[in-house]
Amino acid sequence: MFAERIQSLTSSIIREILASAQQPGMISFAGGLPAEQSFPDVDWSTLPNSVRQYGMSEGEPELREAIAAEARQKGIDCDASQVLILSGSQQALDLVSKLFIDPDSPVLIESPTYLAALQCFNLFQANCIGAKLNAKGPDLAQFEHLIRDYQPRFTYLIPSFQNPSGTCYDVASRKAVAALLDQYNLPLYEDEPYCELDYDQTEKPPICSFLKESPWIYSGSFSKVLIPGLRVGYLIAHPMLFPHLMRLKQAADLHTNRPGQWMALEYMKSADKPQRLARLREFYRVRRDAFAQALEAEFADIAEWQIPSGGLFFWLKLNKEIDTRPLLQKALAEGVVFMPGEAFFAEKNPPLGYIRLNFSHTEPDLIVEGLRRLRRVLEQA
Amino acid sequence: MFAERIQSLTSSIIREILASAQQPGMISFAGGLPAEQSFPDVDWSTLPNSVRQYGMSEGEPELREAIAAEARQKGIDCDASQVLILSGSQQALDLVSKLFIDPDSPVLIESPTYLAALQCFNLFQANCIGAKLNAKGPDLAQFEHLIRDYQPRFTYLIPSFQNPSGTCYDVASRKAVAALLDQYNLPLYEDEPYCELDYDQTEKPPICSFLKESPWIYSGSFSKVLIPGLRVGYLIAHPMLFPHLMRLKQAADLHTNRPGQWMALEYMKSADKPQRLARLREFYRVRRDAFAQALEAEFADIAEWQIPSGGLFFWLKLNKEIDTRPLLQKALAEGVVFMPGEAFFAEKNPPLGYIRLNFSHTEPDLIVEGLRRLRRVLEQA
Repeated sequence: MFAERIQSLTSSIIREILASAQQPGMISFAGGLPAEQSFPDVDWSTLPNSVRQYGMSEGEPELREAIAAEARQKGIDCDASQVLILSGSQQALDLVSKLFIDPDSPVLIESPTYLAALQCFNLFQANCIGAKLNAKGPDLAQFEHLIRDYQPRFTYLIPSFQNPSGTCYDVASRKAVAALLDQYNLPLYEDEPYCELDYDQTEKPPICSFLKESPWIYSGSFSKVLIPGLRVGYLIAHPMLFPHLMRLKQAADLHTNRPGQWMALEYMKSADKPQRLARLREFYRVRRDAFAQALEAEFADIAEWQIPSGGLFFWLKLNKEIDTRPLLQKALAEGVVFMPGEAFFAEKNPPLGYIRLNFSHTEPDLIVEGLRRLRRVLEQA
Repeated sequence: MFAERIQSLTSSIIREILASAQQPGMISFAGGLPAEQSFPDVDWSTLPNSVRQYGMSEGEPELREAIAAEARQKGIDCDASQVLILSGSQQALDLVSKLFIDPDSPVLIESPTYLAALQCFNLFQANCIGAKLNAKGPDLAQFEHLIRDYQPRFTYLIPSFQNPSGTCYDVASRKAVAALLDQYNLPLYEDEPYCELDYDQTEKPPICSFLKESPWIYSGSFSKVLIPGLRVGYLIAHPMLFPHLMRLKQAADLHTNRPGQWMALEYMKSADKPQRLARLREFYRVRRDAFAQALEAEFADIAEWQIPSGGLFFWLKLNKEIDTRPLLQKALAEGVVFMPGEAFFAEKNPPLGYIRLNFSHTEPDLIVEGLRRLRRVLEQA
């Protein structure tokens, strides 16, 4: 009765956890919610009546201009005609899947990678091939092998403060990856929702800014720097890909909501945007540092990790290679939630013993208590 | 390089026309834009800060309750747990396609049908089978034949003031269609964006309210009764289908924008909602009647049509069976746009000589001039 793709449509572990995490007293290191305290006060009172009518599928022209201008500052050679406003950058996963994936199409991803990306590519029945991430980027020899062996339709990379691993590619890795993509004419889908959440001023030019041959898609979000409830994100695409993506957007939902686009433009135009971003980074830097300190005190003898220089997550490798998925229910009973690392790998038998901990959403004075609860669960295992 | 589905991704004729129709002096009978004058003043100043955070994939609980309550009044046996808030009811096309359509899956549609539905089903590589519409609903004998011959995955119907034909199924047809669907256990996707735009108080119980066996999806829109720029619509689904559709929604864009959902709920809760709807119907009834009068004066000798009892369109059958697609460029040159009827049929060789004219968006004092321009184009053909 249903389409074949529905077989891959298992319940999202994130969703179940977010539902459970609503209980009072629960300390949640799962999810990736921004902190409410970081949200700017927004003023809707001057929203113009002109946004009531249907809009253009591409998005509001002024917002597209502003996004293109910012992207050029990052080194991306583009103009507004290449910018497509999306209903959240999550929508890029859907549109890019539609553009490239037939059943069994190979797709080259990072291992681990963003859970919702895995779910979306699997929904379109892709064959997801994971490339191992080292501290500064992918293992380049393996990356090239996988391109040659599988001839993937595209590669999906999150080079800055990756979810879940926190990895930030260094400049040499970015250039080397771009060279490989050009060599094999492999399209790039570069997903950068976290790149503004940079706490240590890391140099991170977009990989697509180094490409000379391969077509590319670069996606970004307003959910982390402004507010997520708007559901406004964007992609920028190589001129060869843009017309297809625009029609796929039109078929998906006609266009992105216009009040949200208006608010995103207000943000882009605001004179104090640099100060707002600086305050946001400082807010999260303090949270990251508090989390790092608590981790060092509570977990130093049972796990290892890198301190992420941006983004929202710590990625822990436990000293014991245990399957952390069955621990989630026990953690819920203890009043704490985390993300089992296994969920972020494409393999049916994923590496064991990893967990992802979000540091952006938990009040600093609850971190130690949450880690102690989690430690009790891990010690029982 | 691209997925196979991209071959079906031709440019949308609607899109090209809407772009052209922006020219000053153009009279547009194409598109389906609501009239700006019909839009309520909306007050955003009391939008609560609570909508800034991520929301639930299903949508805001209060809005789901309000939609379920209204649906029960229409005779649909449902509760809030079956309501999924969408980024416009257009999104239901995408989600239902994902749920049911594999390449070459047969889908039973009305002939003619909504252009964007055809495009979406074709994008998912469906085999669209058209069932002929009579004045009061489908030809039931042919409808049953097509079910038996093709065993479609689902049927897509717009029973009230259909786009493009304006057809409104009478109650007997609704019951008879429901009985056939139950007999063959054929899932129903009932799309009702126009059902509130009812100018003659037509009785129109939802087809899904008569179903006893078959699973169903009912979709509705806030674009026509409130404002389209919000991009908020909804579907209500049989409990067997809901969990799949909810996960497909989550994969597509996480959740619908929350400022728009808040505004939709304000509308649903507003004490003067019945008066607002009555004023809206009166506004469009006047436009419809003015359009009917102008048509009678200008087109009586070259076409025939029914006066639609709701919705936004007149559907004209020209006395001459000419292909109206090549006339569109000529019409643009004359300063008028319309929708060629051929676009609304699934067949590669569609019936000729139909055009769709929108009456909601053109100022009444421009209708006669627009029809005269169009007549000149038709006479040259």
